[in-house]
Amino acid sequence: MTTNFNSKDYLAKVDAWWRAANYISVAQMYLKDNPLLRREVTKDDVKVHPIGHWGTISGQNFIYAHLNRVINKYDLDMFYIEGPGHGGQVMVSNSYIDGSYSERYPDITQDESGLKELCKIFSFPGGIASHAAPETPGSIHEGGELGYALSHATGAILDNPDVIAATVIGDGEAETGPLNAGWFSNTFINPVNDGAVLPILYVNGGKIHNPTIMARKADEELAQLFEGLGWKPYFVEGTDAAVLHGQMAATLDEVIEEIKAIQMEARKHSAQEASQAAWPVLIVRIPKGWTGPKGWEGEPIEGGFRAHQVPIPVEAGHMEHIDVLTNWLKSYRPEELFDEKGYVKADIRTISPKGDRRMSMNPVTNAGVVKKLDLADWRKHAIDISAPGAIMKQDMIEFGNYIADLIEANPDNFRIFGPDETKSNRLNNVFNVTNRQWLAPRDTSYDEWLSPVGRVIDSQLSEHQAEGFLEGYVLTGRHGFFASYESFLRVVDSMITQHFKWLRKSKTHTDWRKNYPSLNLIATSTVFQQDHNGYTHQDPGLLTHLGEKTPEFIREYLPADSNSLFAVMEHALADEDKINVIVTSKHPRPQFYSVAEAEELIYQGYKVIDWASTVSVDEEPDIVFAAAGTEPNLEVLAGISILHKAFPTIKLRFINVVDILKLRSPKVDPRGLSDEVFNKLFTTDKPIIFAYHGYEGQIRDLFFDRANHNVSIHGYRENGDITTPFDMRVLSEMDRFHIAKNAAQAVLGNEAQAFTQEMDAKLTYHTGYIRENGDDIPEVQNWRWENIN
Amino acid sequence: MTTNFNSKDYLAKVDAWWRAANYISVAQMYLKDNPLLRREVTKDDVKVHPIGHWGTISGQNFIYAHLNRVINKYDLDMFYIEGPGHGGQVMVSNSYIDGSYSERYPDITQDESGLKELCKIFSFPGGIASHAAPETPGSIHEGGELGYALSHATGAILDNPDVIAATVIGDGEAETGPLNAGWFSNTFINPVNDGAVLPILYVNGGKIHNPTIMARKADEELAQLFEGLGWKPYFVEGTDAAVLHGQMAATLDEVIEEIKAIQMEARKHSAQEASQAAWPVLIVRIPKGWTGPKGWEGEPIEGGFRAHQVPIPVEAGHMEHIDVLTNWLKSYRPEELFDEKGYVKADIRTISPKGDRRMSMNPVTNAGVVKKLDLADWRKHAIDISAPGAIMKQDMIEFGNYIADLIEANPDNFRIFGPDETKSNRLNNVFNVTNRQWLAPRDTSYDEWLSPVGRVIDSQLSEHQAEGFLEGYVLTGRHGFFASYESFLRVVDSMITQHFKWLRKSKTHTDWRKNYPSLNLIATSTVFQQDHNGYTHQDPGLLTHLGEKTPEFIREYLPADSNSLFAVMEHALADEDKINVIVTSKHPRPQFYSVAEAEELIYQGYKVIDWASTVSVDEEPDIVFAAAGTEPNLEVLAGISILHKAFPTIKLRFINVVDILKLRSPKVDPRGLSDEVFNKLFTTDKPIIFAYHGYEGQIRDLFFDRANHNVSIHGYRENGDITTPFDMRVLSEMDRFHIAKNAAQAVLGNEAQAFTQEMDAKLTYHTGYIRENGDDIPEVQNWRWENIN
Repeated sequence: MTTNFNSKDYLAKVDAWWRAANYISVAQMYLKDNPLLRREVTKDDVKVHPIGHWGTISGQNFIYAHLNRVINKYDLDMFYIEGPGHGGQVMVSNSYIDGSYSERYPDITQDESGLKELCKIFSFPGGIASHAAPETPGSIHEGGELGYALSHATGAILDNPDVIAATVIGDGEAETGPLNAGWFSNTFINPVNDGAVLPILYVNGGKIHNPTIMARKADEELAQLFEGLGWKPYFVEGTDAAVLHGQMAATLDEVIEEIKAIQMEARKHSAQEASQAAWPVLIVRIPKGWTGPKGWEGEPIEGGFRAHQVPIPVEAGHMEHIDVLTNWLKSYRPEELFDEKGYVKADIRTISPKGDRRMSMNPVTNAGVVKKLDLADWRKHAIDISAPGAIMKQDMIEFGNYIADLIEANPDNFRIFGPDETKSNRLNNVFNVTNRQWLAPRDTSYDEWLSPVGRVIDSQLSEHQAEGFLEGYVLTGRHGFFASYESFLRVVDSMITQHFKWLRKSKTHTDWRKNYPSLNLIATSTVFQQDHNGYTHQDPGLLTHLGEKTPEFIREYLPADSNSLFAVMEHALADEDKINVIVTSKHPRPQFYSVAEAEELIYQGYKVIDWASTVSVDEEPDIVFAAAGTEPNLEVLAGISILHKAFPTIKLRFINVVDILKLRSPKVDPRGLSDEVFNKLFTTDKPIIFAYHGYEGQIRDLFFDRANHNVSIHGYRENGDITTPFDMRVLSEMDRFHIAKNAAQAVLGNEAQAFTQEMDAKLTYHTGYIRENGDDIPEVQNWRWENIN
Repeated sequence: MTTNFNSKDYLAKVDAWWRAANYISVAQMYLKDNPLLRREVTKDDVKVHPIGHWGTISGQNFIYAHLNRVINKYDLDMFYIEGPGHGGQVMVSNSYIDGSYSERYPDITQDESGLKELCKIFSFPGGIASHAAPETPGSIHEGGELGYALSHATGAILDNPDVIAATVIGDGEAETGPLNAGWFSNTFINPVNDGAVLPILYVNGGKIHNPTIMARKADEELAQLFEGLGWKPYFVEGTDAAVLHGQMAATLDEVIEEIKAIQMEARKHSAQEASQAAWPVLIVRIPKGWTGPKGWEGEPIEGGFRAHQVPIPVEAGHMEHIDVLTNWLKSYRPEELFDEKGYVKADIRTISPKGDRRMSMNPVTNAGVVKKLDLADWRKHAIDISAPGAIMKQDMIEFGNYIADLIEANPDNFRIFGPDETKSNRLNNVFNVTNRQWLAPRDTSYDEWLSPVGRVIDSQLSEHQAEGFLEGYVLTGRHGFFASYESFLRVVDSMITQHFKWLRKSKTHTDWRKNYPSLNLIATSTVFQQDHNGYTHQDPGLLTHLGEKTPEFIREYLPADSNSLFAVMEHALADEDKINVIVTSKHPRPQFYSVAEAEELIYQGYKVIDWASTVSVDEEPDIVFAAAGTEPNLEVLAGISILHKAFPTIKLRFINVVDILKLRSPKVDPRGLSDEVFNKLFTTDKPIIFAYHGYEGQIRDLFFDRANHNVSIHGYRENGDITTPFDMRVLSEMDRFHIAKNAAQAVLGNEAQAFTQEMDAKLTYHTGYIRENGDDIPEVQNWRWENIN
């Protein structure tokens, strides 16, 4: 017998499911015992501090129940993104009813005792979050920080042609910048190769303490807005559930059939022939706090901000109004919803999607079906280092050759994201094997590398969108990176933090989450390569920012040339549950490290460079040089050359550091070098010259727990400007002359005076020269490494 | 004789102005000498590395020239915001022609020698930026980082009823999240009290290496989009200057008259009666790289991304195509534009707006007419501290009383901004004297404190918008703050950085910029007060982030109670050219510091708290306790109590630190305490227990250059969760029991064993208790400070 999914009978079951979800959601806020009110409620049943957010719950439960209905009707591969920041009960309650919660957490049984425990742990110490957090089955999007729902959804459905991301967006979130950038996602979704995003704008009218802007717009305005954005708007609106069930069912049917029609039509042709679809957007106007208390002490609750959090003051210490709470709970008619043992009644549960069709168990939401990345072999693109520094190459250009191989080896699970910077960041060679994915109209007489199919998505100028796409892509088990101007990665500082928080909590709060492919952030066009774009483009602080997060999840790599970049990227891309920051160069720079050296650099995190040292590893030098980053490495080597020529008897050691966080003390970072190894490398008291790509405070922090504090740090000193490449280093005193001078003074004291003057004279000459010629002095431009031992 | 501003003759002058601006702009990119081509161009005339951005120039110069025209026609008080990221030549060239550049920089004369110098310094070492940077006359918006044009513009015109911010938005910037948040600015502009923003969306078709999404939308779609957003769209489109001049003049007339009509109509009534206007938005479709080279080596340039930067390869070392450059320059007919001495011809300059009407000299763009803030008197709201810790208060509630006074004392130059958090951040008392400004439809049966007139703007959930409004407001000489959840200030990390960069460059690169009122960021609802919202809401890293910028411009205050918050805010609000971060508490907490103590705390930045120390200032203690932040202060005091009760003979000192950066070494920060003072406070070798609100690395960095490294730091350890207030501290070991244990071990070593066990037992009891009860243990809840000396 075929089910009539639009029958009164079926909708009555949807209604019962919805009421059950509402009941459980309200109980979670207030109760820690007696969840079914089967005895009189006492203060011991009520939480001391009820915490939670009511406003968004009932409307979202309504949407969720109806999404289940269309999943059944059309056998959809759908999952749920809960944009609204709080209201974690929605996904918890619904996954509890459909049984997946108990599958993930067997202690939370589906009977009364399990329900009691579920209520207790919600928003409770040692329990679960008030958001759709990592511990919530079916979630890939916590939503604590608002704005990324559409970007995450889109990242998740790329290369998942059967998947639909049902993405609820609160009208609060709809006011954020990043969410508004997200509407442009439709420019990039290929209806053949990719799945679909179904945005559901939930206009409930209120935020924390304000109305929402969207709510005060008329339907006609909203329709114009979304049509202008290229989406096709549908509306569901009302307060009467009896009417709304039919309206929602009919509209969702229409919306799903439209998505299927778009896809079916497009899939008659090749992906290459696809164009941008007018995907449906569903606008649901249902009041905030719907089905809850209408008002309190003369003020309205339903319909606005007063419904946002816990709407009525009932707690263990204040039981005066317990009847309001119990009446509210009883308004859902629990006697129709739960059987004697406290199970949600079987006939309600029959309308649950089954197995992986349950949104809370959709494999996409647990790192997908992780397909290991084929790492290809970078060694065939390695630079042949005949002599250190003899060859000039652009690391990102070379890197593009490797990435092209990766793209070919991983045609459907590897992508590059960016904000219109792929070419500026010199990944040009990638376009030998792929294009930019772009579904909007093309101008073939002008456009470059644009196509409906492509492994690069970089045609929207939005770091939020690029980062959100990548997050959605890796959270669903695929691989990739976001290559950005270093300074503008800071635009998404907080998004990256939230991704880190997701990773950490996935490990500490669940045992069922699979590992995620690493999130790779390539910071190129760096502070020391933004001489021509000027001061606004100069900020290496992402290193400090992420360096203060939990060490287990963060890696910061500063490869100094192409071979070390290759080695780093092979490692980073294969890694899991990490945020990798790779700071790398796009400008022509001398190449120093052989394949073997590069492999050792990434394996150890650092390497004593024997050809740039005049003492053996076991001997104690007079001075230690260290460098992390392309220009630091270059300038230290040049500084060593100058110093060695002037003072050949000074015993020196040079250490190139690729994995900067590995220098931390084990007190701070479990991976940190032991004091024994550290002291052998850096000595306990000899002067150290440390040239660093980032801010100097990070290095001071790093040396704090070490014995040797005799370190001069040459990092970015915020004296940026528009100038020449070498002058950018001079402005931060991270250039060879300052380094050589500093080293000579540290080793020789007053005896270095003449040398100091010589260095100062070179600096003066340099400054005069560039202000006249707009170019660096020939001595620097023509510098080549000469063997020193 | 009245001028006919729409006559052919007048438009011919506009055309000449525009050509002159284009000529100068191109010359600035390529030439360092011979700017008027009055002798044959040699390689010595051409820059070695021409740098600059061509694509946006000609279209913007066209817009600028026509804005000048309407300024003259309607006597407008208008200024220019250059949204597009590069193309600094636009504002430089136009201010050079109108004479203001030479007024600001007398060395840059208006004759050929000045023009030569102007060309040389553009995008040149020691010269000026390629953006509309602080050194650019008339700029308040550098635009290196894109997205903030509309937010800045709106902030600038609030309370400036006569001012119009002509705000050019590139179609690249139009794809960013923050810019899209900016379109909602129209919700907040009162047509009576505020000025107007005229957004000019410049759809030129290309970004760095991609087409723009806006450009590929039809006019009908753009019209729908903007009407949906509540703006009234006007279009100007074409490539033929002859036609476009007339079209642009007519359309701009219409737009200006519409703005004036909106204002005039609204101003017949009181500001209280105003409602949201359908402000005009002007959409200009003029090709990128217009009037420049049409193509190069078979590829098109005009109309897209290839016009973005320097479009043709001419440089000192490559003069092969110099004729293309000179022909390009000559296409502007310089002989009609410059007189013999190289002045722009007088008849062209006659159409310049005069004096302050020149957009580059509009006082609004140089910190406005700064009206000093009346600081009122916080002391009348001070908490009477009968005994330390005896009274419980909510600092932000108390602070609201002071702010209410400030609002009344400064009715038109002080504002509060936020993302729907003013009430959540407990500034409720502010609403005793003002409302939220909101021009959209209101629902008087539900809304709270919404009005067309109000000193609070917090009804859009967007940190970008709040920060942008505040930046625009202070950059035009007014005062205010942005109060935010601490963790979500990180959403605007990079915006804050860019504001800092603006401040710094204003000081280092100009002598004519006035001081700016400070930018005040109140970080409340902090990591240790987000127990109930959970882990996503917990991040104190803004302190580290800003702490690594140039010390002169950054202050970080951590007042531990209401009186210290008052004293800090009085100081912060009166300060200039600073970014002040104030981390403060909104929850009920014991109050400790008297008015006198609070004044000393802010004056010195720290204070030895005698009533919580058992040694005099001159005596050496066995241990030093320090705390920065509300919960650190509270827990250290409680820890001291516990320790003192157990070991009354331990000699201890307690230092409360409000101005954390003052503890830095003078090597890092000129304001830093001398080693002498520091060593006296902290000793050179005695154990220090440092409880800190932020990440611990910042304190390690801070102690790196000091003698005493015997410091145990108790900061935020990223072990956040949803839990109780006290447990949040326990998770970071920043609670009294960990602190007391740590101190006892540091002083007593093995002798502290029994005490250690006692503390551990308390911690175990605490954890069990909260997991059962969802509340902190009574011992902590009932704790009160008892005198120890």
